[in-house]
Amino acid sequence: MNFAAQAAERLAALGRISDEPERLTRLFAGPGMRRANELAGSWMIEAGMTVRQDAIGNLIGHFPGAGRKTLVLGSHLDTVRDAGLYDGALGVVLAIACAAQMRQSGRPLPFSLDVIAFADEEGVRYQSAYLGSRAAAGSFDPRDLERRDAAGATMSDAIRAFGGDPARLDSCRLETANMLGYVEAHIEQGPVLDKAGHAVGLVTSIAGQTRARLDFQGRAGHAGTVPMDLRQDALCAAAQFILEVEQCARQTPGLAATTGQIAVEPNASNVIPSVVQLSLDVRHQADAQRQDACRRLKEVLNSIARSRQIECSWHTVQETPSVPCSLALSAMLREAALRHQPGLMALPSGAGHDAAVMAGIAPMAMLFVRCRDGVSHHPDESVQPEDIAAAFAVLVDFATLLAERHERL
Amino acid sequence: MNFAAQAAERLAALGRISDEPERLTRLFAGPGMRRANELAGSWMIEAGMTVRQDAIGNLIGHFPGAGRKTLVLGSHLDTVRDAGLYDGALGVVLAIACAAQMRQSGRPLPFSLDVIAFADEEGVRYQSAYLGSRAAAGSFDPRDLERRDAAGATMSDAIRAFGGDPARLDSCRLETANMLGYVEAHIEQGPVLDKAGHAVGLVTSIAGQTRARLDFQGRAGHAGTVPMDLRQDALCAAAQFILEVEQCARQTPGLAATTGQIAVEPNASNVIPSVVQLSLDVRHQADAQRQDACRRLKEVLNSIARSRQIECSWHTVQETPSVPCSLALSAMLREAALRHQPGLMALPSGAGHDAAVMAGIAPMAMLFVRCRDGVSHHPDESVQPEDIAAAFAVLVDFATLLAERHERL
Repeated sequence: MNFAAQAAERLAALGRISDEPERLTRLFAGPGMRRANELAGSWMIEAGMTVRQDAIGNLIGHFPGAGRKTLVLGSHLDTVRDAGLYDGALGVVLAIACAAQMRQSGRPLPFSLDVIAFADEEGVRYQSAYLGSRAAAGSFDPRDLERRDAAGATMSDAIRAFGGDPARLDSCRLETANMLGYVEAHIEQGPVLDKAGHAVGLVTSIAGQTRARLDFQGRAGHAGTVPMDLRQDALCAAAQFILEVEQCARQTPGLAATTGQIAVEPNASNVIPSVVQLSLDVRHQADAQRQDACRRLKEVLNSIARSRQIECSWHTVQETPSVPCSLALSAMLREAALRHQPGLMALPSGAGHDAAVMAGIAPMAMLFVRCRDGVSHHPDESVQPEDIAAAFAVLVDFATLLAERHERL
Repeated sequence: MNFAAQAAERLAALGRISDEPERLTRLFAGPGMRRANELAGSWMIEAGMTVRQDAIGNLIGHFPGAGRKTLVLGSHLDTVRDAGLYDGALGVVLAIACAAQMRQSGRPLPFSLDVIAFADEEGVRYQSAYLGSRAAAGSFDPRDLERRDAAGATMSDAIRAFGGDPARLDSCRLETANMLGYVEAHIEQGPVLDKAGHAVGLVTSIAGQTRARLDFQGRAGHAGTVPMDLRQDALCAAAQFILEVEQCARQTPGLAATTGQIAVEPNASNVIPSVVQLSLDVRHQADAQRQDACRRLKEVLNSIARSRQIECSWHTVQETPSVPCSLALSAMLREAALRHQPGLMALPSGAGHDAAVMAGIAPMAMLFVRCRDGVSHHPDESVQPEDIAAAFAVLVDFATLLAERHERL
C-alpha cells in the first residue's frame, strides 16, 4: 500500500474514535483519547518504535539512532468538538510514517527519532490549551490540575483515570540538551495555500497575539422617544470601533484583527443599547507591529469615547509574543519542499500550535499543509491525498537532509 | 390637601401594589391589578363617580352630565416589570382628580365625564399590548384569548380568574356615537421636555413604526489564519449597517431609528462571525418619511451585501401607521396649557399608547408630562410635583374649555 492510501485509512480510523456517537470529539484524557493512543501506539510499534505513554498521557514513540541527539516530530491527537479528520491527527500520522520510512530506507540514522502525539492541544475539556506540550517542555502550571471539566472532574482526577500520574508530571519533561529540534506538520487552518495553489508552505513564525475586552457604557433609552442627538448608544459606538479595527487591519500588512464576540444590554429591539462588551483578537508575526496596532486602536477607542460621550475602556486579557521558527531547520524544510513543488510560500501561523510551546526548549520548525478553503475545526475540514503525499515526501527528505548535515547545526 | 400632595400620595400608594415583593410589577389580571383597581375605584367613588369593571378588567368611573355626549379621560394601571411610579398611573390619577375637580367646581357639565383605567397597555404578561383599550375600542382580537403566560395560563383563564368574562368582551365596547373624545395625560418617556425646560407638552401624533429583522450571512473562519482580504465577516457588515442607520436618522429630522438587539454566531473571540441578526426599529410621525427612510436603508443594505459579498436580507416584522391627534381637541389643550406655562412644545409620541387605539373610535388628544432625563420603564422614573400640578391644571382648564365650546366641535 502506498503512503497516501495508508494515511487516508489511518486518518479515517482515528476519525471513527470519538467521545460522542454522532460526531468527532476527542477530549483530553477521555475514552476516545485512550483508544486513539492505543491505535497510534500500534502504528508506532509497526514502524519499529518503542512506545510509552507519559504521566500526562502524551504518546511517545522512540526509534533509536546513532549518537545522543534526537529529532522530535509530532502533533496532537485531541480535537475540538465536532472536529474534522486532519487537525492534529495529520501531523501524528505523517510523523509515524516518516519514522517508518526512515527505518525502511535501511540507512542508519545518526540521531534518534521520537514521535510525540500530544494529549491536549485544543484545551476543550479544561479551557487551558497545550497541556501535553507544556508538560513535555516543563512549562506546565501545576495550578491547572485543580481545574474542573463540565462534569466537575478535576484535571488531577482525569489524569489518574487515564492511567497517568498528576504528581509526576515533571517526569514528562523531555531531555532538552540533546534535542536537535521539534518539527510539526499541520494543516494551515487558513485559505492562503489553497488560494495560491500550493500543497505545502513553510511557517516563518507563530504569530503573537493580543486579546482584549472592550467595554462601552452608554445610556439606555426608549427607541421611540429619545431623539438621535440626545442618545448615547453603546452599540453605535461599538459598531464604529468594529469598523476601525477592520480598517486598521486592512491597512497593516500581515495584521489579523477580529471582533468575534459581542454582548449587548439590554438587547431589546425597542431599547437603545446601554452596555456593550466586545472581544478583540489582534495577531501579527512582528510583535512591534501588533503592539503599534493596539496602540492606534486604543487611541481610536478614546476618540470614540470623547465624540460620543460614551465610557469606553480597554482591558488586555492576554498577550503572547510571536515565536519565530528556527532558521536552520526551516532552511532545510524549504530545500526539501522545493524538491516537490516549484515554489514555496513562507507564511506565519496565525493559530497557536504545540510547536510554539516546544520552541521554548528546542529549535522548532513547521510545515503547513493546504486544507480546502481554509476550513478547520469543522467536519468539512478537507485535505487532498496528493497534498498529504507531498507533505510526507517533504518530511522524509527533511529528515534525510538533517541526517546528512546535523553535525553542522 | 392640595392636588399635588394628594397625587404624590396616590402614586406612592399605587406604587406599593405589586405582584412582586421587592419591585413594582403589575401585570394584566394579576393580584396587583385587582388591588390597584379597588384602590383607584375607591378614589373614583370619592370623586362622586359610579364605578364598574368591564369584562376584560378595565376600571371605568362615570360622572354624569347633561346631554348625551361623553368625554373620556384615561390611561393604564398595568406596568412593566420593575417599573417606576408614573407610567400609566399618573394619567389615571390625573383623570380622577380632574373629574373630582369638575364636580367640586359646582358648574353642571354639559357632557358626561368617564375615567378609564385600562387593564393592559404594556403587554408584559401575554406579549400582546393594549388589551384593555382594544376591548374598549372593539378591536380586540379573540385569538389572543388562547395566548398563554409564562406559567401556562391562557388569557381566557386569567380574565375569568380576575372576575371578567372572556366570552363577553364585546360588552367592553364603548358607545362611540356620543364620544366627544379621548384625552390621555402620560409621562413623555423621552428627554425632550426636560431638555427644553417645559412641564408639559402637546402630542401631535403617535409615530408610525417599522420593525424589521436584518440577517447577515457571512463565512466563519479562524481569527488568526484568514487574511483580512479573504474574510466575509458578518459582524463587520452589521456594524456598517448600524452606523448607516444612525446616520440616516441623524440626517432625517424627526426620525428615530434604533438597532437595539443583536445576535452573533458563533460569537467566539477567536472565530470570524458568520451570522448576525439585527433588529431595526424606525419611527416617524410622517409615514412617508418613515417609508422613505426604510427604502434608503434597504438600498444601503443591498450595497453592503454587494461590496462585502455577504448575504443580507430585510424582513419586515411589523408596520404601524402614524396616528394623528385631533386638531380640535389639541387646540383646546394648547390653549389650556398656555395659561400655565409661557411656551408649549408640540412633539410626536415615539412610544405607543392606549390613545392610539382609542383614536380608532374617537377624536384623541394627548398631554405629555416632563419626566427627569426621559427615564421610563425603570424605578428611577421621576416626575416633579410642580409638573403634576401643571398637568392637572391644564386638564381641568381643558375640560372647562370643552364644556364651554363642545357644541361647536
